[in-house]
Amino acid sequence: MATLQLATWATNLTYTDLTAPVIEAAVNSVYNWAGCAIGGYSQDAPHIAYATTQPFFGGPPTSSILGANGSISEAYVDAQLAALLNGIASHIDDYDDTHLETIIHPAGPVASALLAVAEWRGPVTGHEFLTAFVAGVEAECKLGLSVSPEHYDVGWHITSTVGSIGASVAVGKLIGLGTTQMQNAIGVAATQVVGMQEFFGSMTKSFHVGRAAQGGMLGALLAKNNYTSSLQSLEAKYGWLHVVSTRENATAYFDQLGEIWEIEKNTFKPFPCGIVLHPIIDAATQLHNETIQQGKDISSVKSINLQVNSEVLVLTGKTNPTTGLEGKFSVYHAAAVGLLYGEATPTYFTDEAVTNATVVEFREKVNITTDDERFGKDQATVTIEFDDGSTLERHIEHAIGSLENPLTDADLKKKFLDQVSRRIGEARAERAYAAFKGIGNMTDVGQLRALY
Amino acid sequence: MATLQLATWATNLTYTDLTAPVIEAAVNSVYNWAGCAIGGYSQDAPHIAYATTQPFFGGPPTSSILGANGSISEAYVDAQLAALLNGIASHIDDYDDTHLETIIHPAGPVASALLAVAEWRGPVTGHEFLTAFVAGVEAECKLGLSVSPEHYDVGWHITSTVGSIGASVAVGKLIGLGTTQMQNAIGVAATQVVGMQEFFGSMTKSFHVGRAAQGGMLGALLAKNNYTSSLQSLEAKYGWLHVVSTRENATAYFDQLGEIWEIEKNTFKPFPCGIVLHPIIDAATQLHNETIQQGKDISSVKSINLQVNSEVLVLTGKTNPTTGLEGKFSVYHAAAVGLLYGEATPTYFTDEAVTNATVVEFREKVNITTDDERFGKDQATVTIEFDDGSTLERHIEHAIGSLENPLTDADLKKKFLDQVSRRIGEARAERAYAAFKGIGNMTDVGQLRALY
Repeated sequence: MATLQLATWATNLTYTDLTAPVIEAAVNSVYNWAGCAIGGYSQDAPHIAYATTQPFFGGPPTSSILGANGSISEAYVDAQLAALLNGIASHIDDYDDTHLETIIHPAGPVASALLAVAEWRGPVTGHEFLTAFVAGVEAECKLGLSVSPEHYDVGWHITSTVGSIGASVAVGKLIGLGTTQMQNAIGVAATQVVGMQEFFGSMTKSFHVGRAAQGGMLGALLAKNNYTSSLQSLEAKYGWLHVVSTRENATAYFDQLGEIWEIEKNTFKPFPCGIVLHPIIDAATQLHNETIQQGKDISSVKSINLQVNSEVLVLTGKTNPTTGLEGKFSVYHAAAVGLLYGEATPTYFTDEAVTNATVVEFREKVNITTDDERFGKDQATVTIEFDDGSTLERHIEHAIGSLENPLTDADLKKKFLDQVSRRIGEARAERAYAAFKGIGNMTDVGQLRALY
Repeated sequence: MATLQLATWATNLTYTDLTAPVIEAAVNSVYNWAGCAIGGYSQDAPHIAYATTQPFFGGPPTSSILGANGSISEAYVDAQLAALLNGIASHIDDYDDTHLETIIHPAGPVASALLAVAEWRGPVTGHEFLTAFVAGVEAECKLGLSVSPEHYDVGWHITSTVGSIGASVAVGKLIGLGTTQMQNAIGVAATQVVGMQEFFGSMTKSFHVGRAAQGGMLGALLAKNNYTSSLQSLEAKYGWLHVVSTRENATAYFDQLGEIWEIEKNTFKPFPCGIVLHPIIDAATQLHNETIQQGKDISSVKSINLQVNSEVLVLTGKTNPTTGLEGKFSVYHAAAVGLLYGEATPTYFTDEAVTNATVVEFREKVNITTDDERFGKDQATVTIEFDDGSTLERHIEHAIGSLENPLTDADLKKKFLDQVSRRIGEARAERAYAAFKGIGNMTDVGQLRALY
């Protein structure tokens, strides 16, 4: 029933069903994803993945690598490789989007698969693209809600485990699957469960997103060709919901499809690191500014005391990160750079930054107290003590970037231009912004990559 | 610790460590896999997979599709596609091999990845190939033992969930990964958990095997290129063992690596269907012969009564299969064809066979009683009653094909020639048999495909 319900909703969805806030949220989600995919292509992970898979993926170059430099023709590979590489690149900086109730980063798996197929099978209009994108995001988030929090708590990386299913729904929608085919597509995607939390802090974390994009795309394409699967892959006794979760209530959430839009709850990360670090960085950067304003010297900070939710240590407890990727999962590193520099852009999560002597010294000043009664996952109190015994304290009720305290349009644009221009220069970054921000009005989204 | 232990054992393994029975078991496992992969290429599933992925996998044609007809040059694709297709084809008939303690079909994921890479990166000698193959099989079976039976009981298709890890170890061994790289390879493979039992009876069941082969290969190749992962992916709190199992004792089983060889326990299926059906078919075919010997008419059978382990109904309870693939998971169908025809070759598991009116009529005569105290999974009692009230009964203590009652060398050869000649003709089948049976002595296994 649940599988049929989802498949039916997705195949019937039309652009006119999308409300204005849904469309706006979708466009922001897509362009923020594009910024991450372009900026993230500076990292090693997507390049290793390219070099590794290049001997296989020599198909016609139909689909673009968003962050590739060089000539425009060099930016194109086949659709499966494009999905893998854009998926990796869009997640490698941990700077993407977040559906906070589930901690899903929704755009990566869905958009990476969808754009690759849209470029390959096009022309696809902006309306068609956004409709399919929303279908995929709603599918993955509703499914995520129905297994949260248990599914995440046992160690699955929910972004990719539901992401393959979201990608299959989005691609299935785009290529016009019927309901039964859509059920089969969901089945092939559901049986590929990629991603565990053990890989946080390594390149494999972002591999999850790329592989989910590939797996979901493959599910939709196989179903289109009448590859048989299961029509009840989600709810069956030995299907997805029961195998990967001890709790499931999918029908209850699927009943809300098209009524409560999860895409409207998508938020955007102000800092390129694990989401539970955001309230701490928010407080630390504010304390940096206050210290300066009071004419004090940051180097005179004696101790940094954090009061946080216990999940912070579970997910980001790395005391001695040695790579930038590990730094993204170190609460010690995050607090140190926030306080030292008053900001936490990608620059502060590089291999150099985490081994910087001053940063290492400051990490050792960090002490942590957990209190789940007082502190939710987006809350924190940071207290710093100076050599002279004086203290400063900041409590964050809702971290910047949360639903209650979201990035403004200007913030989001600034983030995009910053991350993208570091990769492809300012002029191209401005053009990329205009291109992705205007995606809804395009007659062929396959032209996107050529616009910047 | 467990990950390091496995990686260390695998990287240190040499051909001289393999005992004569291990080598014999390995060769039999490989050639039985090849027979399945050639014979299975008659099915739709690998052809749909080929057509679907062909737009992507246009890389240099380095690796062979074992069951491809046509010119020899048409048999070659890139290594990732070859792994997918040979994996699907080798499992689509449910006619492959079985490690009975875990119900893993070991060769499919490992050999499909390994041969594809050996052909691509060669020359690889027969000794190197078999050493890597054994490393992969031991890895997946020891890991399977350490999570059995709970992991299977919740619904995972263990062949593919451990298969990706086996494939990564085998390919990693072949391409000479160091221990740390091997740990990283295991990590990338482990985080891709493919396969649930809901897909039994559909093409997606064999997709699991092909995808596991691809995923494991990709893990080894990424690790070779220094893609970072986790060095403790198996045993970490949010790693493989804890996420996909409620029980794990990997170190205890890894301690036996190289002492107790799981490959020696690999068995070969006499019938192309779910393994729990084998004692029933064994009994039914014997009763067919006895009925004929007594001069009775099979059509005068009034009822067919089965006493079996309850797992038979869990895994193979489909009452009204409508496709050949579903028939492989219908105890009713299996009992009916065994009794009607006195054999159960692939011919009796086609779409035509399961919709044959006589077969359908006989399926309706089947009654089932379960009794887990009296019947293990390889045991069954079948009683048939005739119109005249007389009965015949057969009890199977150990089904043909089990460890206690294995196929003989002659049986295994007969099976290979039967399944392969139906696909590529008798003359080529004989050449293929000689080629794969002689794999251990080859100086370049990349020449295998050209030998038949």
